Amino acid sequence: MTELVRSWVETANDPESPFPLNNLPFGVFSKGDAPRCAVAIGNSVLDLAALQSAGLLPDYGFDAPALNTFMSKGKAAWQEVRQTLTDLLREGRETAAMRGMLHDMDAVTMHLPFTVTEYTDFYAGRQHAFNVGSLFRDPANALPPNWLHIPIGYNGRASTVVVSGTEFHRPMGQIKGPQDEVPGFGPSRRLDIELEMGAVVGTPSEMGKRVSVDEADDMIFGYVLLNDWSARDIQAWEYQPLGPFQAKAFATTISPWVVTKAALEPFRCDTPLREKELLPHIKDTGPMLYDIDLSVTMAAPGSDHTEICRTNYNTLYYSAAQQLAHHASSGCAMRTGDLLGSGTISGPEKGMFGSLLEMTWGGKDPIALKGGAARTFIEDGDTLALHGHAQGDGYRIGFGPCVGTVLPAQRDRP
Amino acid sequence: MTELVRSWVETANDPESPFPLNNLPFGVFSKGDAPRCAVAIGNSVLDLAALQSAGLLPDYGFDAPALNTFMSKGKAAWQEVRQTLTDLLREGRETAAMRGMLHDMDAVTMHLPFTVTEYTDFYAGRQHAFNVGSLFRDPANALPPNWLHIPIGYNGRASTVVVSGTEFHRPMGQIKGPQDEVPGFGPSRRLDIELEMGAVVGTPSEMGKRVSVDEADDMIFGYVLLNDWSARDIQAWEYQPLGPFQAKAFATTISPWVVTKAALEPFRCDTPLREKELLPHIKDTGPMLYDIDLSVTMAAPGSDHTEICRTNYNTLYYSAAQQLAHHASSGCAMRTGDLLGSGTISGPEKGMFGSLLEMTWGGKDPIALKGGAARTFIEDGDTLALHGHAQGDGYRIGFGPCVGTVLPAQRDRP
Repeated sequence: MTELVRSWVETANDPESPFPLNNLPFGVFSKGDAPRCAVAIGNSVLDLAALQSAGLLPDYGFDAPALNTFMSKGKAAWQEVRQTLTDLLREGRETAAMRGMLHDMDAVTMHLPFTVTEYTDFYAGRQHAFNVGSLFRDPANALPPNWLHIPIGYNGRASTVVVSGTEFHRPMGQIKGPQDEVPGFGPSRRLDIELEMGAVVGTPSEMGKRVSVDEADDMIFGYVLLNDWSARDIQAWEYQPLGPFQAKAFATTISPWVVTKAALEPFRCDTPLREKELLPHIKDTGPMLYDIDLSVTMAAPGSDHTEICRTNYNTLYYSAAQQLAHHASSGCAMRTGDLLGSGTISGPEKGMFGSLLEMTWGGKDPIALKGGAARTFIEDGDTLALHGHAQGDGYRIGFGPCVGTVLPAQRDRP
Repeated sequence: MTELVRSWVETANDPESPFPLNNLPFGVFSKGDAPRCAVAIGNSVLDLAALQSAGLLPDYGFDAPALNTFMSKGKAAWQEVRQTLTDLLREGRETAAMRGMLHDMDAVTMHLPFTVTEYTDFYAGRQHAFNVGSLFRDPANALPPNWLHIPIGYNGRASTVVVSGTEFHRPMGQIKGPQDEVPGFGPSRRLDIELEMGAVVGTPSEMGKRVSVDEADDMIFGYVLLNDWSARDIQAWEYQPLGPFQAKAFATTISPWVVTKAALEPFRCDTPLREKELLPHIKDTGPMLYDIDLSVTMAAPGSDHTEICRTNYNTLYYSAAQQLAHHASSGCAMRTGDLLGSGTISGPEKGMFGSLLEMTWGGKDPIALKGGAARTFIEDGDTLALHGHAQGDGYRIGFGPCVGTVLPAQRDRP
């Protein structure tokens, strides 16, 4: 395990800081002016457009409201920039010019870090697939027959991927309960979260070209926390035979900082033992997951947050690189800015489940929240937050918050 | 029924021409130079970038390799440009300057007419849904219970939408036949087409805002022919529980010309009688489909084309406007350049089925092609073409070709 790399930005040396010099996650910020690229360091953001303009970084498009240009440059450029930033921010290297490019994190607005080209959501958590299969279908055959052979995924909707802190309205939709004779149109009453991580594609692949698992890993720029908000009642009625559609199209929240593969490298760990041998094009080529502590907290309006789930990214069955290799296996072109949701990350026990559907077992066992409220699904005004970090020796690689508050449905339309 | 509007471009007055002055479909062309916007007129393309540069059209971004800027301007701008072009091209108005902006259609290269933002594929053909339900699932319960209430759709892959004429390789994928104990990875052996039309979204809708069916209709810029190539063996193994993924991710072909709603207006016709009353947010508000003759031809390598299907767009159950209203019903933001596939258009009888899966009833009844070949699914080197036009009184509104040839699979990878 590597150790803390000390910075002249003092807050970055706090062992509890999510953003030590070892991390250097990339994002997009503004301060009443034009959004531009940054890295997080301690309690500050470092303006990369200013660094680029001062000639301290190559022109990789940092003076833009999205990381896509930089992400498209590939791993040599990513490594070069990481090395330069590490040198500039290392303890003892402080300059007045650099100090002037730092902004207090509390004083800036964070934006979506990259333009999401397309969004794909996978289903790589075995416990989650088992739980959902039990609840939606048949407990005796909960895991679909293909699940141990293929990283099941579906195309999601990119137009509603939003950055942490973006509020949204409870979705309306067509719903037919088991007791209803005909469907009705109204607000979802079973609004849920899904605790996921998102892999961000940096370099593209051509239409018609497959990529190996190792090539896929090289294409990934980094990772974010991802909340795949889901309306379970809309989903149950619509999802057969072609999959989830409006049930997941209204909002997907990601954390504002993309944590790079380089920062996560010390935390690589193995995928689980394979019950069925994987086919060569998606076979593990080494430790492909990461040891990342994940948790979910929930707060009723005006109350404090309660932790309702604690699990780890290392419980997944398929890695992002395997998912990406599968995604390109038909010749599907992958592009800079493609976002791949991991699938809901549910550990093997009840306190480790990554959705309310599972935590409350289909709405039967309410959760107690601070302030005295009980919840099965999300009520108006509730705030949900995902948290994640990898724990190093005296330092942490944090992701920053992934938070959303649900506003009431807008009923003023047919 | 309106009549032919005569043009000084003589080939546009031929009653068999797909591109009379009544049509004026928009596309993107090049002639060894930079791609730019155009309309088709008779056997020619008219360079809209040149017209814009000559001050004869407003600056709606025609000097660009995609129609998206123009499409985003909305229906008043679309109508203004159509009126201007109609006046400029009307019989008797010929000028040398205009003549100089025409290019022989055979001498230009057509490109993808717009940047596809996201691609959604629907399932709005009742006969197709019944046929596929019978073949993939249970003939006794072929139509899913939600089908008569909701325009079923799923998110497709935008990165592999290509213009007519683009060749592609047979996809590889994970396949498990009913006799196989474990899946294997190899070339699809059940490669198919789906005869569809695509609706192209012009003006966007905001996240969180639903749109009425009439507002949705106003958002649609126009229509293209669309072939949703499908690998049935990959699909059968992967599609449960979250829908088609790699089976349809390798290629989707569209025709090069976007036929506008204005050109299709005289051909509006009613949606079918409703067996179940539709909910208000997707209820028909008038004649919402179009009377468009559609056909599919297929050619083995070196042989002539054989017509294998003839049907009509008016056989669909849901219109594009209803699909779009449903798409936005959860608050899903819709954007300029979104492409909505209608779903496979199969008429009620065998010669009207829009996929080989249906025509050959799951591969059991081969089709005879000119030159003596027989086919169940597509073989390497085969060419498939979709054709479509609305028949007016002495003129046609044509779509131009939607053609693709399948190259052999590329096996040179794990």
